[in-house]
Amino acid sequence: MGILVVGSVALDSVKTPFGVREEVLGGSATYFSVAASYFTDVSMVAVVGSDFPEKHISFLRNKGIDTSGLQRQQGNTFRWKGEYGSDLNTCTTLDTQLNVFASFSPKLLSAHCSQEYLFLGNIDPDLQRSVLEQVKRPRLIACDTMNYWIENTRESLLKTLSKIDLLIINDSEAQRLANELNILQAARKILNLGPRILVIKRGEYGALMFSPKSVFSVPGLPMEEVLDPTGAGDSFAGGLMGYLAASGLSDDSAMRKAVVFGSVMASFNVMDFGPQRLGSLTYPEIESRYREFHRISSFEDIPRNPFSEERNP
Amino acid sequence: MGILVVGSVALDSVKTPFGVREEVLGGSATYFSVAASYFTDVSMVAVVGSDFPEKHISFLRNKGIDTSGLQRQQGNTFRWKGEYGSDLNTCTTLDTQLNVFASFSPKLLSAHCSQEYLFLGNIDPDLQRSVLEQVKRPRLIACDTMNYWIENTRESLLKTLSKIDLLIINDSEAQRLANELNILQAARKILNLGPRILVIKRGEYGALMFSPKSVFSVPGLPMEEVLDPTGAGDSFAGGLMGYLAASGLSDDSAMRKAVVFGSVMASFNVMDFGPQRLGSLTYPEIESRYREFHRISSFEDIPRNPFSEERNP
Repeated sequence: MGILVVGSVALDSVKTPFGVREEVLGGSATYFSVAASYFTDVSMVAVVGSDFPEKHISFLRNKGIDTSGLQRQQGNTFRWKGEYGSDLNTCTTLDTQLNVFASFSPKLLSAHCSQEYLFLGNIDPDLQRSVLEQVKRPRLIACDTMNYWIENTRESLLKTLSKIDLLIINDSEAQRLANELNILQAARKILNLGPRILVIKRGEYGALMFSPKSVFSVPGLPMEEVLDPTGAGDSFAGGLMGYLAASGLSDDSAMRKAVVFGSVMASFNVMDFGPQRLGSLTYPEIESRYREFHRISSFEDIPRNPFSEERNP
Repeated sequence: MGILVVGSVALDSVKTPFGVREEVLGGSATYFSVAASYFTDVSMVAVVGSDFPEKHISFLRNKGIDTSGLQRQQGNTFRWKGEYGSDLNTCTTLDTQLNVFASFSPKLLSAHCSQEYLFLGNIDPDLQRSVLEQVKRPRLIACDTMNYWIENTRESLLKTLSKIDLLIINDSEAQRLANELNILQAARKILNLGPRILVIKRGEYGALMFSPKSVFSVPGLPMEEVLDPTGAGDSFAGGLMGYLAASGLSDDSAMRKAVVFGSVMASFNVMDFGPQRLGSLTYPEIESRYREFHRISSFEDIPRNPFSEERNP
């Protein structure tokens, strides 16, 4: 089944301890789409300016991504400039030029209104709901957000959260959204706001998934080549949703595999600047990395003792 | 098989966002011994002052711990005072009074020289080597250290590291020891210094184990009741060594289980101030918590595709 993603397409200028890149292809819809494209059909809804290089559109189309919902408007494309600290865990935004993204109002083509999987990238929660008003109820609606919306448009964000199935955010966003430092308590509060499932990304430390009945934790893969974390969160969401849409499954076991596929795509993404490494994968490489995640995190359970006090669970 | 631990016994005064406790039983040898006592026989070598309350010795003996190597000297017991920040990840030492610990020089009783498992708690690396000179080569020598020794007695620490099997430290210590921020590269460098196996503790994010052939990652257990992290690292080491000594195993599968048992003991320890919760466990509770770790971190592998490029690994 196919996925519709609504989000940003940007030109990013990034500095990390390992290099500098000017105006590389970026944005939440970009990273999400490229990651998900290895699993299933993806259609993106976003906006770019008249200055947007044609080669980037070719790159997306070559990944099989449906760009018919990528509007081109008079003006400049959204630009973001950021610098990462020495351990890559902190990022300072040096400049944000919204440009044509400032007046982005997602208008869905009729072909896009009946997609079964929907990802609402990190945009104004009012716009996220305007998308929900245009679609036939998808099988699964996932959503991202950020501290800016949590702080400045909380009421609108809460309305959006009441209408979605799956929220994918990072740990500081979860803490801010729940007003709670303890991550388990924060997760419980967020699950009461609407989403059935919450996935919390923790950068190099991996990810947690919470549902009312289950907690799942996948570690980060210790890696030598980490050049640029930009887009890791959206690549994660793309791998996760990609696996769910391709398999059509939604039980706990499939959700866990989906979180691992998300981690796999994020782990490839950070190996180079922009979506370069992410865009040049083969599916066997993805499977091989998945097995690596399994290898580093598996250990034997201990047998149940029939005489212990657990015997009647 | 039995374990000998050489380390500190202290009276800790601790402030966390959840309360204040004055002069509770602490020290690396204490937390290690209590955690390991659920698995096997433990003998501790440490020093206390003439002011050390008899009830603490009774507590240790009631856990079956051999305290015949606990020297009592004229003067006051080692005291440590610390305060944790709101997220419990940062700790400020407010006061350290070494007292009788300043002149601690471990003298082993003959019965202790042939223990098969040895844990060198976080003490001066010169003293750690003086212990190694007194013992018959144990099956496994594990060791802890801290940034103070890494910075101030590096040469001596390197000599100690060349003589041990297993190093158990936290992530910032690993980075400092290796002069390397990337944790995988840091681990490779440290494995070249002597230890066959390196375990890196990451607080609430779990732990990593590195050996020349294998990487293993166990997540932290998301918990609601975290009152005081003091002693979590030594409880971790106690559970890890306890399982190894009790099972007599040392293959990769056993090492992974040992790291999980370490995580289990640390997770209990943080639930209360001092070694209170740690000291009142039953073995079925430990097994049940182990299974909880297994439940939160297990996911299905994907089958190998016979047509993929991996077919001849």
